[in-house]
Amino acid sequence: MTKDQRGKLSIFALGGLDEIGKNMYVVQYGNDIVVIDSGLMFPEEEMLGIDIVIPDITYLVENKDKVRGIILTHGHEDHIGGLPYILRQLDIPIYATKLTMGLIEHKLREANILSDTRRYVINNKSEIRLGSTLKASFFYTNHSIPDSVGVCIDTPEGAVVHTGDFKFDMTPVNGQVADLHKMAELGKKGVLCLLSDSTNAERTGFTGSESTVGEGINEVFRKAKQRVIVATFASNIHRIQQVVNACQLYGRKLAVVGRSMVNVVNIASELGYLHVPSDLIIDTDEINRLPANRVAVISTGSQGESMSALTRMANASHRKVEILPGDTVIISATPIPGNEKLIGRTVDQLFRIGADVVYSKTSHVHVSGHGSQEDLKLMLNLIKPKFFIPIHGEYRMLRTHAQLAESVGVRPENIFICDNGDTVEFTGGRARYGPKIQTGKVLVDGLGVGDVGNIVLRDRKLLSQDGILVVVLTLSKANGTIVSGPDIISRGFVYVRESEQLLDEANRIVALTMEKCMKEHVSEWASLKTSIREALSKFLFERIRRRPMILPIIMEV
Amino acid sequence: MTKDQRGKLSIFALGGLDEIGKNMYVVQYGNDIVVIDSGLMFPEEEMLGIDIVIPDITYLVENKDKVRGIILTHGHEDHIGGLPYILRQLDIPIYATKLTMGLIEHKLREANILSDTRRYVINNKSEIRLGSTLKASFFYTNHSIPDSVGVCIDTPEGAVVHTGDFKFDMTPVNGQVADLHKMAELGKKGVLCLLSDSTNAERTGFTGSESTVGEGINEVFRKAKQRVIVATFASNIHRIQQVVNACQLYGRKLAVVGRSMVNVVNIASELGYLHVPSDLIIDTDEINRLPANRVAVISTGSQGESMSALTRMANASHRKVEILPGDTVIISATPIPGNEKLIGRTVDQLFRIGADVVYSKTSHVHVSGHGSQEDLKLMLNLIKPKFFIPIHGEYRMLRTHAQLAESVGVRPENIFICDNGDTVEFTGGRARYGPKIQTGKVLVDGLGVGDVGNIVLRDRKLLSQDGILVVVLTLSKANGTIVSGPDIISRGFVYVRESEQLLDEANRIVALTMEKCMKEHVSEWASLKTSIREALSKFLFERIRRRPMILPIIMEV
Repeated sequence: MTKDQRGKLSIFALGGLDEIGKNMYVVQYGNDIVVIDSGLMFPEEEMLGIDIVIPDITYLVENKDKVRGIILTHGHEDHIGGLPYILRQLDIPIYATKLTMGLIEHKLREANILSDTRRYVINNKSEIRLGSTLKASFFYTNHSIPDSVGVCIDTPEGAVVHTGDFKFDMTPVNGQVADLHKMAELGKKGVLCLLSDSTNAERTGFTGSESTVGEGINEVFRKAKQRVIVATFASNIHRIQQVVNACQLYGRKLAVVGRSMVNVVNIASELGYLHVPSDLIIDTDEINRLPANRVAVISTGSQGESMSALTRMANASHRKVEILPGDTVIISATPIPGNEKLIGRTVDQLFRIGADVVYSKTSHVHVSGHGSQEDLKLMLNLIKPKFFIPIHGEYRMLRTHAQLAESVGVRPENIFICDNGDTVEFTGGRARYGPKIQTGKVLVDGLGVGDVGNIVLRDRKLLSQDGILVVVLTLSKANGTIVSGPDIISRGFVYVRESEQLLDEANRIVALTMEKCMKEHVSEWASLKTSIREALSKFLFERIRRRPMILPIIMEV
Repeated sequence: MTKDQRGKLSIFALGGLDEIGKNMYVVQYGNDIVVIDSGLMFPEEEMLGIDIVIPDITYLVENKDKVRGIILTHGHEDHIGGLPYILRQLDIPIYATKLTMGLIEHKLREANILSDTRRYVINNKSEIRLGSTLKASFFYTNHSIPDSVGVCIDTPEGAVVHTGDFKFDMTPVNGQVADLHKMAELGKKGVLCLLSDSTNAERTGFTGSESTVGEGINEVFRKAKQRVIVATFASNIHRIQQVVNACQLYGRKLAVVGRSMVNVVNIASELGYLHVPSDLIIDTDEINRLPANRVAVISTGSQGESMSALTRMANASHRKVEILPGDTVIISATPIPGNEKLIGRTVDQLFRIGADVVYSKTSHVHVSGHGSQEDLKLMLNLIKPKFFIPIHGEYRMLRTHAQLAESVGVRPENIFICDNGDTVEFTGGRARYGPKIQTGKVLVDGLGVGDVGNIVLRDRKLLSQDGILVVVLTLSKANGTIVSGPDIISRGFVYVRESEQLLDEANRIVALTMEKCMKEHVSEWASLKTSIREALSKFLFERIRRRPMILPIIMEV
């Protein structure tokens, strides 16, 4: 893809399609490559033991002399979380708005690569040249974190617009409505291709304004008799601002709890995205010194994550903050799919303590940061793209977004529903699928990046279901007879004390199998091991309908 | 609890409180015990490898001469699924309505205990004596399976009413409105204590009528150009009836797919709960012989379960039925918490095939079978109990249901929010908490019932996170030196080929540890093993931040 790439525009994703997470989109024209976002993804349920997942960036590493920069659209983990890993392999400049850069710098500092990274802060007036053929400009959007932008990449084939994550909020908390006029202008000048956020493509109507949540929060503060604890996403600075405002309105001091909440509040305050009166914030140690009706707490843990601040408070295992009967807890978030049960348990625990719990199932204390169908159609109508690629979503969301695009007049043959690695090539105003690019999931487990593959995951799955039996025996070098063993050690299989008989029988099965092998003069270890594994597996399945992993170990002396 | 039990009424749950599943409630007066429901629960995420969970019935086994019968309120697994296990330990008669009994009989036949079980079919006219002091009568309710009943147990202390699972449906599919008059009569005569279904206590309003779903389904049938595939819960016979009706209305034949769907359709048709014209049903082999617009399929798999019919169809791995572009698939169910992702993946696969997918997020094709807040208040107002115990729900649901009861006039001190095993004792019109009864979760894994406990589960969890390293070495009996090894075998830890260096180093760590032990004349195997485990664990955590299970095996020759 080097020579024939000249004079051709190519768009593809290394992550973010057919999934929610690890967003990474690429626009390439000839020898100029620009990357939009570098996210991480949290592991799927079947990725046992995995901490995070990042995109496979083999293509970028192989073409690193062409990569002109990475643009980060906003500061969420699924857009910036992969940077510490990516930047270890690629020495390229990064571009982000002030708040996004603040959050990135914190991340790079922790990874010890801050000073090695070339960083450029951009805003909606910036124009940056990326190589000899590409130019990027930006427009502000509304999202659940401030300073989010969409990107316009001007290419010799035409303009490519990437929305970032967005909704339209007509009454945003910081007063900064999206750059509607700039979007309109882009549309008027003509856009070749739009890449737009599909997260909420299944939802009808417009997504509500963030400020309506403020009203809900105020209402709860007004009625609360004792302390108010608000749990939300640490990065939702608008939400935090509204809690700050409620504190001012109702005369409460605010304690900030949870590592990432403290971190974001500091960065956002320093950079001017969060406005907190200097005497409003109190230390967690002071919570108990003030009357309960003069205190509020803002905290992480809105997803019921086991180690988070709210979960620890609910389980009475938080070092500093205790929730008492009569306190009010607001869970200002909706469950991310998969977290419903965890959140349910946290709510149960809080109710058990005797707290009043206000959560999205019963009250209006959350809105999404992603646009619903009417937001998406408004974006399409503003940008008026010739071609459309729905991004940032699982397949049904991409597909539904494509239908929306069709409904507002994008020609069906001009809509490309892609998977990660699918390329769309544009030449002379025409588009078609190009060659596939290598992509995939790189699994991070502890400090290991990519060393856990399918075999390891399959073994973890097996081990998690029925455990393991290790069968140990020692053979004589001289005549192949058993010198010691067979011994069976089991973990995660049965509770040994209650299953002695079963394990005794298993032992006999192994001994019998060995005898049989010897009679038949089987002496290759591989065959012996296979025989033991098969005989034992059959016996256990028949007896107890379980299939533990069986690991025969044969020693020779 | 024998002598002082005389003249005292006691109510408690062995399952169903602070959980959704394994419902089992007990009403005891003196020497007479009656059990209501015997459900199973599907395992929580952390119960690795477990198939199902049933209640601990130690109390019933210890008092088996007093147990007069088990009443089954309806045919759902969380109410009847534990019977095959329970009845192996308790020889007591069971009471259920005709359809419920049909489903139970199928279950007991499979478990080979049908002929050993005394079975009595009841209806809303039945009155059954249970021992010398208790008498049960029944009233029909509306639920997502026909023939559901609530139970009234008359005791010397007063009437105890158990609602079963219910909602109020003013336009039910089978025309059989709940026994409102009988409930009103019970309320008028006076009810001591009500136990009522809390599943939807968090939802405002009334739960919609099942017949509104029929309209949604008809609408989809009307528009569908090719085949229509409907996935729903096998036990939702009303829903199946409405699909049958839609087939008649729009001239389609119906194929029934999925083991439990075939089973329920057969039982329900035989017993007269499902009305299917004899020429409507076709064999799955005939699906492809008929024009696509003359065929519909009803199937299991509405929860995206990996082995279910719909999931296999979506993955093109079903032996008989293939879904083609242009087919319409209705997922007539909402995700049970925890299943959101599985269902999402199935919908994605169906979209990929090119099917039109109609699901609850985008269309009205499902209603719940459990009453919302207004249904629950109506039940409370009809029954007018003196005491109230919310049942069938996680803690927050019980708690919210208690608030509803208070709002319609039940005195707060007369509401008992219980956990499984908590007893409420009634004497002379007063109630208080009594002694705690043994309860718990009995885990079923394959054919093993209760042989997997916390240690086994903890090991499975450990194994699932970072796998296992088995360290094998052979020592000389003579002088304690290493004769062979150390050998390290890993499973589920790292991909060995890419981590040779790490494993080599691990090997050296073990060898060094052994040397050190020998110098220090440590020779007890337990100490040697601990030293190896600790040294290796420390090394691996520092190097790669993982904590695999380490299993040292020392042999002596």
